[in-house]
Amino acid sequence: MPRIVYVNGRYLPYARAAVHVEDRGLQFADSVYEVCAVRGGRFMDIAKHLDRLERSLGELTMAMPLGRRALEHVMREVAARERLVNGLVYVQVTRGVAPRNHAFPVPSVRPGLIVLARTRNQDDHTARQTDGVAVITVPETRWARVDIKTTALVANVLAKEQAANAGAVEAWFVDTDGHITEGSSSNAWIVNTDGALITRAADRKILAGITRIATKKAAAAGEIRLVERAFTLAEALAAREAFLTSAGNDIAPVIRIDDHTVGDGRPGPVAKSLLQCFYDVVDYEPAGR
Amino acid sequence: MPRIVYVNGRYLPYARAAVHVEDRGLQFADSVYEVCAVRGGRFMDIAKHLDRLERSLGELTMAMPLGRRALEHVMREVAARERLVNGLVYVQVTRGVAPRNHAFPVPSVRPGLIVLARTRNQDDHTARQTDGVAVITVPETRWARVDIKTTALVANVLAKEQAANAGAVEAWFVDTDGHITEGSSSNAWIVNTDGALITRAADRKILAGITRIATKKAAAAGEIRLVERAFTLAEALAAREAFLTSAGNDIAPVIRIDDHTVGDGRPGPVAKSLLQCFYDVVDYEPAGR
Repeated sequence: MPRIVYVNGRYLPYARAAVHVEDRGLQFADSVYEVCAVRGGRFMDIAKHLDRLERSLGELTMAMPLGRRALEHVMREVAARERLVNGLVYVQVTRGVAPRNHAFPVPSVRPGLIVLARTRNQDDHTARQTDGVAVITVPETRWARVDIKTTALVANVLAKEQAANAGAVEAWFVDTDGHITEGSSSNAWIVNTDGALITRAADRKILAGITRIATKKAAAAGEIRLVERAFTLAEALAAREAFLTSAGNDIAPVIRIDDHTVGDGRPGPVAKSLLQCFYDVVDYEPAGR
Repeated sequence: MPRIVYVNGRYLPYARAAVHVEDRGLQFADSVYEVCAVRGGRFMDIAKHLDRLERSLGELTMAMPLGRRALEHVMREVAARERLVNGLVYVQVTRGVAPRNHAFPVPSVRPGLIVLARTRNQDDHTARQTDGVAVITVPETRWARVDIKTTALVANVLAKEQAANAGAVEAWFVDTDGHITEGSSSNAWIVNTDGALITRAADRKILAGITRIATKKAAAAGEIRLVERAFTLAEALAAREAFLTSAGNDIAPVIRIDDHTVGDGRPGPVAKSLLQCFYDVVDYEPAGR
């Protein structure tokens, strides 16, 4: 368990970290979040996470709960108090507390802010990269604006649970056109039979992953040809390689899609090559005081 | 403000009514809710609300937080302590508190339960029924399972805010086929040029409203011909009458849709006739001790 959690201006013991029952994050999923990885005591691409947080807030006409420097300070402080070396810092911003009513509160209320850090099991993390993971596919059921990183995640929860029940670590959503959009908490990539690396362009049907950006950089560094376009489930099943990217996994090779083995069932050369470059193309900042 | 709120086994003063920051309702919208009206000190159709709550929970593989009788007791107790005569009792059930991870917690955790009551402004309520209300239309952006009453409501929030900004009380979602599904917190009805009362059948694209059921009963009692089918925006604009139904409004005539006046711009005879029967077809139960 985390030791402390930052909640609305205070560093509280984990057990007492609470928000009001009429926080709009709880009643309406009227809130957004970020998950920023810490590796070796350093934030990975924190500036990009804060950029995306600002964008998500803007799309919902919500204000930043703190100035950007102050927010970064809180994240560093939480990581420091948590003695975080390898793990994740979770930041959630809600529209705040107000008597229940769908429309925005008038006058507006102070946004809610929660920051907590959690050490990750680095062996599991490495094992997923080394051994690869299985994914299942499920129909796309999410709302039309998954490009905004809101906490309206119940569809993602149900998809992930279905994956877990099938012994997989992720579920890839397939839209009505037969295209894979992304995973329930990661972006989806394949290497097709021509050797091209393919991932969906960052339209409104996926979240523009920060790890996705770093992976694009890694591809450029490794001179791997990248095509940003939607790909079908059929293409994924025929692919030489597949992998997923997320702040929680960085790059994790996908060795099984539903009952189908990808390539020879082992992490492929493109995923391995990207992983070799990956940690060099990330921007690091100290995650302590 | 409410005086007290029931939260996870305790009746707490409103100001101190809180849930843990890792409640899955807050982090994932992994939670469902009900809003049950109280009129003249009596619950309206509480049994149907609890039926629907059980269904929503079942669809998310969640357990009832309390036995049904115990939950009803809590709702009565909250209403009594709140001295509620006319208003709403809000019940929210979450999957509970667990370290953040999309898949369901293993082992499962105790569900979260929040019950709060709020007196409503009965004059506003009556005015909406007497004077009618304006609605706007917005593209359907919600997820594929709005038949489950989850708190993943950010799309509804954005739609309602757009309505409020346009001086309207509701936004009707229009799907890609041009059909109106429902409002952001109400069901949608029209009386077409042939005099038929039309509302969408309760498929997965709408919530099966409890007030919708009572309105169907009122139509039957008043021998008004009802057709349950999807209707288009064009049909709504050409309609003689339109109205919305919800636990918060019961039946509220719609006199404007976007910039278009419905009928003669005043509540029509079908809506008025339904309102006359409506309060007689509801099942009442005491909302006190």
